[in-house]
Amino acid sequence: MNDNKRQKVVILGSGWAGYSFARTLDPAKFDRIVISPRGYFVFTPLLASTSVGTLEFRAVLEPVRRLPGGVRFYQGWADDVDFSQKVIRVEANAVDGLPSELQSSTVPVKKEAVKKEAAKKGEVFDVEYDKLVIAVGAYSQTFGIPGVREHAHFLRDVGDARRIRLRVLSLFEQCSYPTPADSSDTHVAKGSLSEADKRSLLHFVIVGGGPTGIEFAAELHDLIHEDLKKLYPELVPLVRITVYDIAPKVLPMFDQALAQYAMDTFARQGIQVRTEHHLERVRIADGLLGSAHGGMSIKIKEYSDEVNAGLVVWSTGLMQNPFVEHLVGKEFAVAQDKELQKPEDARPHRLVKDAKTGGILTDAYLRARITDSETSQPHDAAAAAGGTSSKPVMPDVFVIGDCAVNEGDRSLPKTAQVAAQQAGYLAKQLNKATQNGSLDAVDVGSAWKPFKFRNWGTLTYLGGWKAIHQSSADELRGWVAWVVWRGAYLTRSMSLRNKMMVPVYWFVSWVFGRDISRF
Amino acid sequence: MNDNKRQKVVILGSGWAGYSFARTLDPAKFDRIVISPRGYFVFTPLLASTSVGTLEFRAVLEPVRRLPGGVRFYQGWADDVDFSQKVIRVEANAVDGLPSELQSSTVPVKKEAVKKEAAKKGEVFDVEYDKLVIAVGAYSQTFGIPGVREHAHFLRDVGDARRIRLRVLSLFEQCSYPTPADSSDTHVAKGSLSEADKRSLLHFVIVGGGPTGIEFAAELHDLIHEDLKKLYPELVPLVRITVYDIAPKVLPMFDQALAQYAMDTFARQGIQVRTEHHLERVRIADGLLGSAHGGMSIKIKEYSDEVNAGLVVWSTGLMQNPFVEHLVGKEFAVAQDKELQKPEDARPHRLVKDAKTGGILTDAYLRARITDSETSQPHDAAAAAGGTSSKPVMPDVFVIGDCAVNEGDRSLPKTAQVAAQQAGYLAKQLNKATQNGSLDAVDVGSAWKPFKFRNWGTLTYLGGWKAIHQSSADELRGWVAWVVWRGAYLTRSMSLRNKMMVPVYWFVSWVFGRDISRF
Repeated sequence: MNDNKRQKVVILGSGWAGYSFARTLDPAKFDRIVISPRGYFVFTPLLASTSVGTLEFRAVLEPVRRLPGGVRFYQGWADDVDFSQKVIRVEANAVDGLPSELQSSTVPVKKEAVKKEAAKKGEVFDVEYDKLVIAVGAYSQTFGIPGVREHAHFLRDVGDARRIRLRVLSLFEQCSYPTPADSSDTHVAKGSLSEADKRSLLHFVIVGGGPTGIEFAAELHDLIHEDLKKLYPELVPLVRITVYDIAPKVLPMFDQALAQYAMDTFARQGIQVRTEHHLERVRIADGLLGSAHGGMSIKIKEYSDEVNAGLVVWSTGLMQNPFVEHLVGKEFAVAQDKELQKPEDARPHRLVKDAKTGGILTDAYLRARITDSETSQPHDAAAAAGGTSSKPVMPDVFVIGDCAVNEGDRSLPKTAQVAAQQAGYLAKQLNKATQNGSLDAVDVGSAWKPFKFRNWGTLTYLGGWKAIHQSSADELRGWVAWVVWRGAYLTRSMSLRNKMMVPVYWFVSWVFGRDISRF
Repeated sequence: MNDNKRQKVVILGSGWAGYSFARTLDPAKFDRIVISPRGYFVFTPLLASTSVGTLEFRAVLEPVRRLPGGVRFYQGWADDVDFSQKVIRVEANAVDGLPSELQSSTVPVKKEAVKKEAAKKGEVFDVEYDKLVIAVGAYSQTFGIPGVREHAHFLRDVGDARRIRLRVLSLFEQCSYPTPADSSDTHVAKGSLSEADKRSLLHFVIVGGGPTGIEFAAELHDLIHEDLKKLYPELVPLVRITVYDIAPKVLPMFDQALAQYAMDTFARQGIQVRTEHHLERVRIADGLLGSAHGGMSIKIKEYSDEVNAGLVVWSTGLMQNPFVEHLVGKEFAVAQDKELQKPEDARPHRLVKDAKTGGILTDAYLRARITDSETSQPHDAAAAAGGTSSKPVMPDVFVIGDCAVNEGDRSLPKTAQVAAQQAGYLAKQLNKATQNGSLDAVDVGSAWKPFKFRNWGTLTYLGGWKAIHQSSADELRGWVAWVVWRGAYLTRSMSLRNKMMVPVYWFVSWVFGRDISRF
């Protein structure tokens, strides 16, 4: 590999967009440099399975450094980009003993805390790029609801899944201590839980009826009814699982019949679904229930009384990454590039922010749009109509995934599927472009076709070996969809190692039960 | 199962002694009640393998609640025993979010902290027993050396292994950031590590040349030279592994030829072994190396200068559990039991403490010895000569494993092998005893033979697919011993699940490399 001849492509982020891009980009042609606060990609569709022990955590992780063909990796936060000098400022984030709990890219509060810590202690360094791919994703949006950030669990990183798993198993363990009436051979001295307390702690609340929330509810139901039932038989009758959503129906991406099938399945399993319910607050419950056991009281607008719960999982809403907010807010002089030789390019510019979502606007080739900073004209009114406008772009800066808004189709959802397709499109275009010989041919030319999203369909697991699947071509439900669900996940974005291990774990969990060691 | 007819056997501890006993005791005849601060048994011989990612953590864990035949389990600390009333006071320890890091049974400082916390917040309750088996193990002994408790890692629980693994991978990640001289395309702004700093952080120190320390050094060497070498090629030349021991030779349980073979193997692998070296202090290194990277400076008596290191693993010495100290210190009236009808039994008694180790003295049937508290005569002078003296015992209290000292053979080492054999002996005797019909026949009668330890031999892994094995019958070295090493571990004390999974992990690690995701 001729390091001096290959262009340096710096990729910010190791999620669906960043990792899929890095995986597809040809290392023989490009020097891949990944910068991310975490050293691995998370295969998110199976994250809920790890949170209940069906799968090992590692089965859904792909280490960035193991990308075939060699990759440079810096574990850290991209702090700033100097678009004129084509340099990224990075804050190191490999500090020792920092558990994944604090490395989650999904919880701004914690992230900021970590960032500050790293800034105080760690290294800051600059990395140059020839091409930059911004794929930093989005954060969980809590809409300012009090207590969600502090007391609810997210389910976006493997650290989240581990925390949820520990919490669920801990709750069963805490409720398994004797109560005064339990038996004659144990005498409770102090601080014991009443049956009502146990019902409170064994109430599992999920906020958000999208696929993540629904799948977590389903996996949790399986864990409780297939495994914990044998180990804590006396506790299972006390368990409740409730999904709250503000919308009139859950799973909005499925048509009415499939969503109804999901609701019927849940109803048979005893999982309560409460649509048009609004969470207003989460707080630690009063008394021993809260102080000793972490029980919570949640306020639902539609109910006069608070509802107690032992676990609240928050799986609704995304907001922009603060790094993206920083980037779209700053002015910079456009780098001297031969594609930008119009007079106005000498003036300071800004990235164009999508007014609705706050994301970075791109043209149909996923290049970052820029606007003249002085006149503050967004330059994208025409472009919004679609297609390849002649408005200025940064030819060497691409934006993909949750933080990007493609002016060709602004309605694309923030999903793994969109991110992965954008990543694959961009990497393949770049791979092709350099086959023409000159590295300058990497720049978008007539050879590029605009990015176009293809809906591969949506799959959601419903528990009890049932799933639903919807695509433009077909609809499936029940165990057939379950087979498709399991099969589909084996063919996607996984290393051979995990393609082998995931079925092994499925088999072992099926034969021996899910692992229930709490560590 | 007739709960009212089965005797309640309460087992304190879930290590080699407690878990092996519970596993062997017949649940049809006894009501098994396990009380332990952790809900699982750790298969310690493979713990070092998990600390480097060769095996999954869960592959060395066996959940107590999954014991076949049904078991009652209370996660908590035994706080006190009322031998007169035959009641154990338990402090609950299933508080939420308590990571295994704090549940380790090996680190008194942390344990005490946790205990206090639990006492403040949690439940306290009493559990009655008919028979009590004390198997609470021992703590790590640090001989009061400053800084060991705070800065060194132990390797006795799965939480320890996880922390070590995170630290090792974090150190490589921290050292992989660019240094000023590294390349032209990165510019270090502040806080960068010099090459000397990196050498310091990549110095891995093991204190204690017993099998645990030697195996960890070997596994770490394999991780670095089989896996990390490919991912951090520039860092591997900076790595050093050093084993310090105060004795003139390591692996004292092996004969000279095998120990020498081990030393020669290590020498070829570049692992330094420093015998007759005395650690005097561990402290955080000065400057950025310490404050930002957790680097340590250790003082060795034989060197004038301190030695820097990024990781210190402490694997030498055991001390008595504070719970055992509490038990041997307290007076109690002996329960009215028909075996103890001599006049002096009405007076207060104490357990007999082994003067040398502080453990609880047992007779050759593993029953706790007691002594007359007023006269303070240890009653065990005669018994020390071996065999079954007529000195008093608690007929319903057994002590096994690291906290027990068998008066029949006081020289038995504190090893998994001894603990497992004592556990198996005791459970089988109890199982047999009740076959006579009456439950009272459980009491030791003429049918019991004294416990006798059989040395099954010792195995130690040396890295690079080599091991040594020594027993009374044979000696093995090299890859043959390695095959025995791997084979032996599959046949011991493991669930079928882990018997299946361990070879799968070995295979996967061999083909794809060890997992290196840091989470």
